[in-house]
Amino acid sequence: MNHEFDAIAEYFQNPATHRHSTTVVGNGDDASVHHIPDGYALVMSTDTAIESVHWPKAMPLNIAGNRAVHAALSDLAAMGATPAWLWLAITARDMTALQAMSKGIVQACGTHHLELAGGDTTCGNTNTITVTAGGLVPQGKAMLRTLAQEGDEVWLLGDVGLAAAGLKQWLDDKRQGCFVPYFERIQPRYTQGERLRQAGVRCCMDVSDGLLQDAGHIATASQLQIQIDLEHIRQLDCYQKLTSYFDAETSLKKVLSGGEDYALLCTAPPELRQDLLKLQAVRIGNCLPGEGVHLTHRGQVIDYNIKGFDHFA
Amino acid sequence: MNHEFDAIAEYFQNPATHRHSTTVVGNGDDASVHHIPDGYALVMSTDTAIESVHWPKAMPLNIAGNRAVHAALSDLAAMGATPAWLWLAITARDMTALQAMSKGIVQACGTHHLELAGGDTTCGNTNTITVTAGGLVPQGKAMLRTLAQEGDEVWLLGDVGLAAAGLKQWLDDKRQGCFVPYFERIQPRYTQGERLRQAGVRCCMDVSDGLLQDAGHIATASQLQIQIDLEHIRQLDCYQKLTSYFDAETSLKKVLSGGEDYALLCTAPPELRQDLLKLQAVRIGNCLPGEGVHLTHRGQVIDYNIKGFDHFA
Repeated sequence: MNHEFDAIAEYFQNPATHRHSTTVVGNGDDASVHHIPDGYALVMSTDTAIESVHWPKAMPLNIAGNRAVHAALSDLAAMGATPAWLWLAITARDMTALQAMSKGIVQACGTHHLELAGGDTTCGNTNTITVTAGGLVPQGKAMLRTLAQEGDEVWLLGDVGLAAAGLKQWLDDKRQGCFVPYFERIQPRYTQGERLRQAGVRCCMDVSDGLLQDAGHIATASQLQIQIDLEHIRQLDCYQKLTSYFDAETSLKKVLSGGEDYALLCTAPPELRQDLLKLQAVRIGNCLPGEGVHLTHRGQVIDYNIKGFDHFA
Repeated sequence: MNHEFDAIAEYFQNPATHRHSTTVVGNGDDASVHHIPDGYALVMSTDTAIESVHWPKAMPLNIAGNRAVHAALSDLAAMGATPAWLWLAITARDMTALQAMSKGIVQACGTHHLELAGGDTTCGNTNTITVTAGGLVPQGKAMLRTLAQEGDEVWLLGDVGLAAAGLKQWLDDKRQGCFVPYFERIQPRYTQGERLRQAGVRCCMDVSDGLLQDAGHIATASQLQIQIDLEHIRQLDCYQKLTSYFDAETSLKKVLSGGEDYALLCTAPPELRQDLLKLQAVRIGNCLPGEGVHLTHRGQVIDYNIKGFDHFA
């Protein structure tokens, strides 16, 4: 008996994982083989989650597995892609950890009709999940960070700051805290991503490191300035929720710099306003000539330190 | 300044890494976008290498990075695919480790004209490299483990056992040992893999866990028996090399069960014999009705424990 192969067979070759229509050879050979349909481009992203870095050690490992898949799907959402397959590199401290993480992963694959098309299972000191997610987008239609235009408005789809608040409650031993579910359950917004793309949005990204820092990536990639309006931020539902628990300054900091909510941040010309409102996006700022990200209050730029999460700080 | 983004820019967005002709959006957005040419299928594989598990802690980290890329390419070789892109998930203990690993990775990308199309850089306790490699194969032509036929002959292309011998020398503190280079430098055989495919070979895999264990995967996937002829094994150059240093029993064990050489193991009907000899493949056995892998000596099955590497034993 080989423990590794038996575990892979038991935990991952589960009826809950789908076979995608493009797949010629799925999990079980040296590599998987896929036929990309005419008119579509391949979209690929990789994300790693490490115990005690990306999730607290005390968090159940099935939740960690579930989150890892959802975080990877969020990158595809940001491109407007439809997720199709997932390749998993999982490092487990022992068989119990492997089983728990795989449970969350297979469950997420089932929920999103994703094929677990391949992977590598290893034993190591630190529970680690690397998810490479692949999807399809109509050729030439992927939403890119480089495609913001001066005159575009900046829109947010989904909450920001609540996951950071949930993590804080968790770490403060308030495991039943009102924000904990926002940390434990990532909502990958690929259906909304597809709809943004269909509505004609050309520039989008997911907010994983903090709203201002991530907006900075769009500003840099598109060579323009982004102004975020403090009044709009204060009207966000997520800000309101946070102020019922934290003081105004802490709430604002969480909204502007808290990571891991995986909301979508996009820019679009004013003529798409109605489409974006229908998708429940909220307008938070504007794209202007210049560079960087600036917070404004009643039309004036205000001073604010925009640091987000830095793995090597 | 953000250390993470600066390091990514400095170490990975290097002129030595290529841009593949299929790539619409490369490294730097939420995901990469690729246009798969007509008549080709996508081939994808993921592999993880962990310090102190897959390489000795004292080994220079640039060698570890180089090996990780080559090991991933070997999976594409086994399918007969041409490598195109690589997505990297790297966990580094500190900046020095990140720089050293990235050096080996970028160098390997340069050597093989691979595009580093995306990735995730994280800081954690254990240096870990997960490489997801993607390539292209003409539609319907991927070599699969399931496609061995009764009557096929079994062929080996490349050495087996020398990497295991090199690792042993390294661990015995013989860092200049004659076999150490075989462990440090993986030769990904994708050019040979492509030629095998072009010659008409339908069934192939790479030998990463040990010759007999990996042959067992073909036997299981193709529902037949594989017999490996001990006389042929004893005539292999790699066996001869090993016997100049180890006793006969140890040499045989390394050839049959030593992992990480990344030779190609394939099966083919006798009419392809000349093509395989031209590619310097060596015939080592046959496919027969039945199941499992058996070692034979002068036509008789002999008793041999075929255990290869098991991560969770």
